[in-house]
Amino acid sequence: MNLIQPARPAADELRDRFQSVRALSLALAAPLSAEDQCIQSMPDASPTKWHLAHTTWFFETVLLQPHATGYRVFDAAFAYLFNSYYEALGPRHPRPQRGLLTRPSLEAVQAYRRHVDEAVDALLAGAGEDTDWEAIAPIIELGLNHEQQHQELILTDILHALSCNPLLPAYRAAPTPALRLASVAPAMRWLSRPGGVVEVGHAGGGFSFDNETPRHAALLQPYAIADRLVNCGEYAQFIADGGYQRPELWLSDGWAVVQAQGWRHPPYWLAPDDPRLVHHGATAGWHVFGLHGVRPLEPEAPVSQLSFYEAAAYAEWAGARLPTEFEWEAAHDAPGISQMSGQAWQWTRSSYDPYPGFRPLSGVAAEYNGKFMVGQLVLRGGSVATPAGHARPSYRNFFPPAARWQFSGLRLAKDL
Amino acid sequence: MNLIQPARPAADELRDRFQSVRALSLALAAPLSAEDQCIQSMPDASPTKWHLAHTTWFFETVLLQPHATGYRVFDAAFAYLFNSYYEALGPRHPRPQRGLLTRPSLEAVQAYRRHVDEAVDALLAGAGEDTDWEAIAPIIELGLNHEQQHQELILTDILHALSCNPLLPAYRAAPTPALRLASVAPAMRWLSRPGGVVEVGHAGGGFSFDNETPRHAALLQPYAIADRLVNCGEYAQFIADGGYQRPELWLSDGWAVVQAQGWRHPPYWLAPDDPRLVHHGATAGWHVFGLHGVRPLEPEAPVSQLSFYEAAAYAEWAGARLPTEFEWEAAHDAPGISQMSGQAWQWTRSSYDPYPGFRPLSGVAAEYNGKFMVGQLVLRGGSVATPAGHARPSYRNFFPPAARWQFSGLRLAKDL
Amino acid sequence: MNLIQPARPAADELRDRFQSVRALSLALAAPLSAEDQCIQSMPDASPTKWHLAHTTWFFETVLLQPHATGYRVFDAAFAYLFNSYYEALGPRHPRPQRGLLTRPSLEAVQAYRRHVDEAVDALLAGAGEDTDWEAIAPIIELGLNHEQQHQELILTDILHALSCNPLLPAYRAAPTPALRLASVAPAMRWLSRPGGVVEVGHAGGGFSFDNETPRHAALLQPYAIADRLVNCGEYAQFIADGGYQRPELWLSDGWAVVQAQGWRHPPYWLAPDDPRLVHHGATAGWHVFGLHGVRPLEPEAPVSQLSFYEAAAYAEWAGARLPTEFEWEAAHDAPGISQMSGQAWQWTRSSYDPYPGFRPLSGVAAEYNGKFMVGQLVLRGGSVATPAGHARPSYRNFFPPAARWQFSGLRLAKDL
Amino acid sequence: MNLIQPARPAADELRDRFQSVRALSLALAAPLSAEDQCIQSMPDASPTKWHLAHTTWFFETVLLQPHATGYRVFDAAFAYLFNSYYEALGPRHPRPQRGLLTRPSLEAVQAYRRHVDEAVDALLAGAGEDTDWEAIAPIIELGLNHEQQHQELILTDILHALSCNPLLPAYRAAPTPALRLASVAPAMRWLSRPGGVVEVGHAGGGFSFDNETPRHAALLQPYAIADRLVNCGEYAQFIADGGYQRPELWLSDGWAVVQAQGWRHPPYWLAPDDPRLVHHGATAGWHVFGLHGVRPLEPEAPVSQLSFYEAAAYAEWAGARLPTEFEWEAAHDAPGISQMSGQAWQWTRSSYDPYPGFRPLSGVAAEYNGKFMVGQLVLRGGSVATPAGHARPSYRNFFPPAARWQFSGLRLAKDL
Repeated sequence: MNLIQPARPAADELRDRFQSVRALSLALAAPLSAEDQCIQSMPDASPTKWHLAHTTWFFETVLLQPHATGYRVFDAAFAYLFNSYYEALGPRHPRPQRGLLTRPSLEAVQAYRRHVDEAVDALLAGAGEDTDWEAIAPIIELGLNHEQQHQELILTDILHALSCNPLLPAYRAAPTPALRLASVAPAMRWLSRPGGVVEVGHAGGGFSFDNETPRHAALLQPYAIADRLVNCGEYAQFIADGGYQRPELWLSDGWAVVQAQGWRHPPYWLAPDDPRLVHHGATAGWHVFGLHGVRPLEPEAPVSQLSFYEAAAYAEWAGARLPTEFEWEAAHDAPGISQMSGQAWQWTRSSYDPYPGFRPLSGVAAEYNGKFMVGQLVLRGGSVATPAGHARPSYRNFFPPAARWQFSGLRLAKDL
Repeated sequence: MNLIQPARPAADELRDRFQSVRALSLALAAPLSAEDQCIQSMPDASPTKWHLAHTTWFFETVLLQPHATGYRVFDAAFAYLFNSYYEALGPRHPRPQRGLLTRPSLEAVQAYRRHVDEAVDALLAGAGEDTDWEAIAPIIELGLNHEQQHQELILTDILHALSCNPLLPAYRAAPTPALRLASVAPAMRWLSRPGGVVEVGHAGGGFSFDNETPRHAALLQPYAIADRLVNCGEYAQFIADGGYQRPELWLSDGWAVVQAQGWRHPPYWLAPDDPRLVHHGATAGWHVFGLHGVRPLEPEAPVSQLSFYEAAAYAEWAGARLPTEFEWEAAHDAPGISQMSGQAWQWTRSSYDPYPGFRPLSGVAAEYNGKFMVGQLVLRGGSVATPAGHARPSYRNFFPPAARWQFSGLRLAKDL
Repeated sequence: MNLIQPARPAADELRDRFQSVRALSLALAAPLSAEDQCIQSMPDASPTKWHLAHTTWFFETVLLQPHATGYRVFDAAFAYLFNSYYEALGPRHPRPQRGLLTRPSLEAVQAYRRHVDEAVDALLAGAGEDTDWEAIAPIIELGLNHEQQHQELILTDILHALSCNPLLPAYRAAPTPALRLASVAPAMRWLSRPGGVVEVGHAGGGFSFDNETPRHAALLQPYAIADRLVNCGEYAQFIADGGYQRPELWLSDGWAVVQAQGWRHPPYWLAPDDPRLVHHGATAGWHVFGLHGVRPLEPEAPVSQLSFYEAAAYAEWAGARLPTEFEWEAAHDAPGISQMSGQAWQWTRSSYDPYPGFRPLSGVAAEYNGKFMVGQLVLRGGSVATPAGHARPSYRNFFPPAARWQFSGLRLAKDL
Repeated sequence: MNLIQPARPAADELRDRFQSVRALSLALAAPLSAEDQCIQSMPDASPTKWHLAHTTWFFETVLLQPHATGYRVFDAAFAYLFNSYYEALGPRHPRPQRGLLTRPSLEAVQAYRRHVDEAVDALLAGAGEDTDWEAIAPIIELGLNHEQQHQELILTDILHALSCNPLLPAYRAAPTPALRLASVAPAMRWLSRPGGVVEVGHAGGGFSFDNETPRHAALLQPYAIADRLVNCGEYAQFIADGGYQRPELWLSDGWAVVQAQGWRHPPYWLAPDDPRLVHHGATAGWHVFGLHGVRPLEPEAPVSQLSFYEAAAYAEWAGARLPTEFEWEAAHDAPGISQMSGQAWQWTRSSYDPYPGFRPLSGVAAEYNGKFMVGQLVLRGGSVATPAGHARPSYRNFFPPAARWQFSGLRLAKDL
């Protein structure tokens, strides 16, 4: 696990962070009933309860069993139920059937979390004496970052599940009064960026995933990048201009999906004539379903839940293109740039390929990232659902091009 | 609705029966958590919560809205959510997505039941004055029989859902000490039956579904019928004799399913080497998963959860055949016959075709049975899951030939 | 093979018939190129070349190999390639891949036919001496009737294949001048028929398939049956009246297919706005594609290529029903009845179940009919594609309810 | 079409080349019967006849109709039948149904070719006077390169079709005596290559496709590349070492395909116990089906028909990796390197992304390459099926990662 820079905070600091990250998962689940937390609305998504258990299983299997003397496994069956994709760690419950696990109950999973949390806490409380701190600190770091990834998925997956309910219930009520963005979106501006050799990838000094390494040099051509994300008002113009009916704007695979699935707008948008709007006393016009339920489309809000195909088609329509992941990374601190994180992940025009000299993690985490490096596209940035402090400029998120249940939008780029 | 013989009990008697049938549904759901009651394990099955709501919707829509003055609909959205297949009653939530309805919650569905139960009770309490008793009594009869059908499905559907959980949890604990059948199964005996004209179908005097009518004459050839059902011990011999590997025993469609689905034994049987048995401290030999969890195979117990294809292949292997539905009905009171109901539904060699002169119910219930009369086979009898008093000798249950999540077994017959 | 009444014509007579039936297969293939004869347009259909080879394989395997001393197999690989569904006769080339057999070439298959024909001829020429005439005569009868069944399929299958070509080429040109039916269809008349016991099934004295036996008594209620088939003009009224948009007319499974497949009219009908009509210089109005290519709809012609679902929905719309197979058979010689054969097979309201006392053929032909007795409906009569002399009043044709590439129409019936 | 460097040979030279390229297509089809040329064995492959017609359609549509005064279209329907994927050029016959086009016949397609060839010849014969040479020369260049691509597909597609025939017929007989490679394969050697900036992409001066442009600088790390391709003997060791049963060697998507499709070896390899070998009088050991039929595996021959997943798994097993497309291109003229083309296309570890500054062709050919730039991997080199003179070092071939009907193999690389 040499590619991860061990953070080596004092044990107390790590203990605090462990508690706060673990607490956040439960806080995210709190607005949801046991029924909500049990279901799975599509094979790519997972139940909330499963996320709560799987992240716990990771600590139990990778940290406690090898490193905590005398640790008692909570329930031997859980290893089968809550492994996700680690072939090396044994057979697994089939992914599409995660929603059938009414047992263990939510209460049992919560007890499982407490059991593991206490054991980790005890392990950390004793750290420094004969604990193998060199070994366990990076595992905890990895486990916490892993849990943060699942915290984002808790939100994206439950949003998808709720979107399948014709009542379109809100994950939680919007704050009152609802935050309103400025009524007029500032015009997008192009920021010019020079070409040349840039250093990309994780620079060390803190945690990173293996796929961000090794840091290396990359060559760029001069380019321009938009100072903000494409917003819903702009995307509505693309729709109004026939964007979903014009094959010349689309990649071939994308156009096939548009036709096969009948795409006409982003998945959580409700057209003015959507029959579900009557249940919501909705006024005229487009609406968008989100974590706060059904709300009128806000033109200034970044468009989200786009597939790569839609992002690329929009860019083509706008006479621009998507940035490469290195253009994005090199522009990260550009003067005047905004919305680089905290709003929506940003599709890039870069396939998810290994960096030069990339080697996966060794050991149990070897399957973490490398084996997914085909058929996916890189997203950069971070979203409203990304836990604070989780992302960084070198972070490489990735999804298949048709995925559109993430908070995924786009920023334009062009050649100079 | 002239084909249903109106039962016309006194209003008080019907009121009592309404209460007891409705209470049984809740009692059946009682051992299940809210999570258990929410999920759907395959498109043909439905969540417990959905059954509880759908049967309630039937009374609200067919009885209360047209006939209870001033009735206030509990929630207008429920008509969309809990309609099952009545095209005439408007659009419906897609059947395969019933398991995504975490909202309304189980509590809300329970409140819905109370709301409707009170309104029905009030309607019946006032019956006799200006109530249209002629109109509402048959609707209540139909609604209660409809609910009894769903009571059986509550059990068969949750058993399927629990069978998908690798932990194989029990629906409820077996009674202690467990009831044990006699250790030696009596040898099956053949009962000879004469040919000739017999009257079949519902004779009037009590409730029936439309598909049991009109009563009519049928011609039989002399035949013999088994005095009891095929049991698990006999079926295990069929398996041991290569029953699932011998195409000559199977109907062509059945053999195709055997191969495509990899059938090797009934769906809830666990082979001696099944890895799930280790969680259950199981001894050697075959086991069977049922409402009381995983238990050693009982040779004397009727085999159940068979598809028609398996029943027909077994009969072929045994040098016999399945009875026709009229042979079954004509033998209903034969001296020495046993297990005609209360154990397992019995596949017949009769396709589910309309009786001569059959006309579907008129009005809202017109879609009740007639529109399913193609591609299905008739089952006769009744099972351990059938509510007491629900079935009768003329009752025609029906399922597609590959269905095997019901308590469905077989009784042999042969030509004389 | 005791259920087949051996025809026992003199050997010479059988020899003549063998030659003429075999010649007809080639004559039916004659208008088709080698390319036409090679392709398979859907899994249910087979290439012409395959039909020519499979019928030949039947004679080679069932007749010549066991009964012709010193017979030399034409090519050992053909047993694998041209077996259709006989599990007992070994593994088979997968049905959906029959269209990939460019080799053996059409010429090789024609040589295969000559090789087998000569061997059969030699066998028959020597019949009477030490030939086991008792054994071979029924096999030849069966083989010729089997070949006649495939002759009909040659036409229905190639018609489907040609219908998939956007050029809609004709199987062969229409005779000049084209035969025109009377310009005014006679009004349909109802023929009243008494109830009571009738004898149905094959009466002996000539060939029959096993599924027509045993002859037995059946009970009928009084009924009326239409004196002719439903014609295209009448069916066009059903379409114009919204027949394909009204779920209440359809069986549940049928309505699901209508929606899933987008059915709007019979499969070979071309709506007035069909873009393929421009290639055919077609005038306004409905057209129908058939063996003679695209021609204006003839209102008096029997409607054909209907599924059972469509036939049943039409009958419902017309306030009538389909006859049962026994009603049909009992009316076969009714005064005034017409179009009983030679136009279109007639869907009945009878599932394809075994007759009382039915036993399949023994030996190699045991798989002939019995193993298909589930999930299909009986058709009676015969079509324009049925070879002369092949059908008879007791003949039971059968297809699944969604099949609609046969010459299948309907005749109405009703209760009295 | 500015990115293509117009070749501008004298008209006579282009006329000669036109004739020879067009003649080669017919020569490739010559060993095949009309039946062979008609069928389509999977949606990704096309019939030979379709390739012959489609390449002709391209000249008719893009060259003759806009540029040849008075050109008479051969058959207006062909535009619909033989367009492949050009959305801008109108609706198209569905790709998976190309094998159903028995009409037009092969003879008609051959006549179509003659008709177009004569028109092109006449156009070129008159070139120089008032012909718009600037416009037509690049179109002819593009059309000929397009036809060469389809010449390769003619071979790969018919090989797939023949592989679906259990007789495994040869495309054409092997030369006698068969060429035999040296009996001992030279050991693979690693060639060290420096890092630094290299120029990649098409350098101008001759034809190229748009996806090879613009030429640009790329940064490489020091690396080593194998001097030859991985051969069948080496790949057999991977199989023998359990390569297809070890998930840790595979990308996640690849492992899913291995399991779902039951992959155990390359698609045209026949294991020693393959039942089809009995038809070929084969001796013990592995065999490989190819254009010359079934032949014993030659250990020294490059392995071919691999998917990207298999190539990557092999490289992982060998402790190496695949080269990037730029590493491959930079090593093209390395001393000691061999088998860069003419044997098998070589999968690279580079996704098929656009080059910096890439713009698709304008006009009718705009859909040529750019719209496929997602979800595919780049292959470099050229195969035994690639027409002479077609490939070049900057050539970017591309296929999805699961494709394995091409002559696609691999060359190893590693970091230094």
